[in-house]
Amino acid sequence: MRDAYHEDLDAIGAALVRLTGLVESAITRATVALMQADLTAAEAVIAGDEEVDDLYRWIEARSLDLLARQQPVAGDLRTLVGGLRMVSDLERVGDYAVHIAKVARRRYPAGAVPPELRDIVAEMGATAASIVAKAGVVIAERDVAAARELESDDDVMDALQRRLFRVLLDGGWPHGMEAAIDITLTGRYYERLADHAVSVARQLVYLVTGEHGWAPAHG
Amino acid sequence: MRDAYHEDLDAIGAALVRLTGLVESAITRATVALMQADLTAAEAVIAGDEEVDDLYRWIEARSLDLLARQQPVAGDLRTLVGGLRMVSDLERVGDYAVHIAKVARRRYPAGAVPPELRDIVAEMGATAASIVAKAGVVIAERDVAAARELESDDDVMDALQRRLFRVLLDGGWPHGMEAAIDITLTGRYYERLADHAVSVARQLVYLVTGEHGWAPAHG
Repeated sequence: MRDAYHEDLDAIGAALVRLTGLVESAITRATVALMQADLTAAEAVIAGDEEVDDLYRWIEARSLDLLARQQPVAGDLRTLVGGLRMVSDLERVGDYAVHIAKVARRRYPAGAVPPELRDIVAEMGATAASIVAKAGVVIAERDVAAARELESDDDVMDALQRRLFRVLLDGGWPHGMEAAIDITLTGRYYERLADHAVSVARQLVYLVTGEHGWAPAHG
Repeated sequence: MRDAYHEDLDAIGAALVRLTGLVESAITRATVALMQADLTAAEAVIAGDEEVDDLYRWIEARSLDLLARQQPVAGDLRTLVGGLRMVSDLERVGDYAVHIAKVARRRYPAGAVPPELRDIVAEMGATAASIVAKAGVVIAERDVAAARELESDDDVMDALQRRLFRVLLDGGWPHGMEAAIDITLTGRYYERLADHAVSVARQLVYLVTGEHGWAPAHG
């Protein structure tokens, strides 16, 4: 039987997995909002961020409380410290989903994604959701090998963002400046979001193996 | 005479003030890089981020170590927890300075700021540096009143970003899509950076007064 302290650690881990699920679903809905000009989906993502922030604060408070009360060492200390960084990255992933939903809301009832970019944006949305889903599995199963694979998914996202910018820069953009601004920012949001999700996976490698090489996600 | 524990707390506070100075100087140089198409300044900001990240990690490690070893309560606990959030926001401010410097570097030897936007971008740069400088004073003097004033500086930044977008959307943008993308992202970087600096000031209010109302900076 596990003692109260390890039950607390397990509860924090479970909450991190739940948070990952929340932000994955936020990304999926934000992409629907964007691709279908679906105002209800956009509003749901924006309103849902409160739940993400609440869970974020709960995990942070519980982790700091355990740190202060239990004086954990070695593996448990890394679990708590790594968890604090993960939760901060996940909260940011949720924020980017909100930013994407707000682009959809701002352009409603018009759509924010011109026809020639629909494939690329849909693929960015799917890639983002998939990276976050994998990060959830990585946390739940403490799967170092899967965590390392996420780096190549991030390369896919970077390539998609470059394709998006190439269409914008192609010389014949006929959709006006407002659409260009929205697409520039949307592409950036997906790319940043993926970067933070990969940073979550990197934390997992750190907390399982103690290997450093950790650097904060940039932006 | 202060004991070792309170000397450690003081050292963390001093490091936070030093970090604020580092990122303020990064912003000022990034704005020079952008406005003068100054490659040396851009490279200095980009290379300088390593020092920012090192100091960030030092402060985080010291804070977590004190939390685990000293089991602080009440005011000292808030100081450590608030400090952890501040350092995370300051690290992000530094990242945005790097992003701005990278825009300057990407466009070099051309300039990234068209003539009709020079006044607005220069004012965004000055406002950003001023907000971060004030955040440093707020931390050093634990000045709650000054912290609260920073909210209105953030409104100034938001207004500047709206002015920037209005010029882009004016209908007669003659500088092409690449310049539009750079200006869109640059405006966003300054606005986000200010938001994180204001979040630092909000943390100070929390750690001095214990008042909540804290929410993570968005993005």
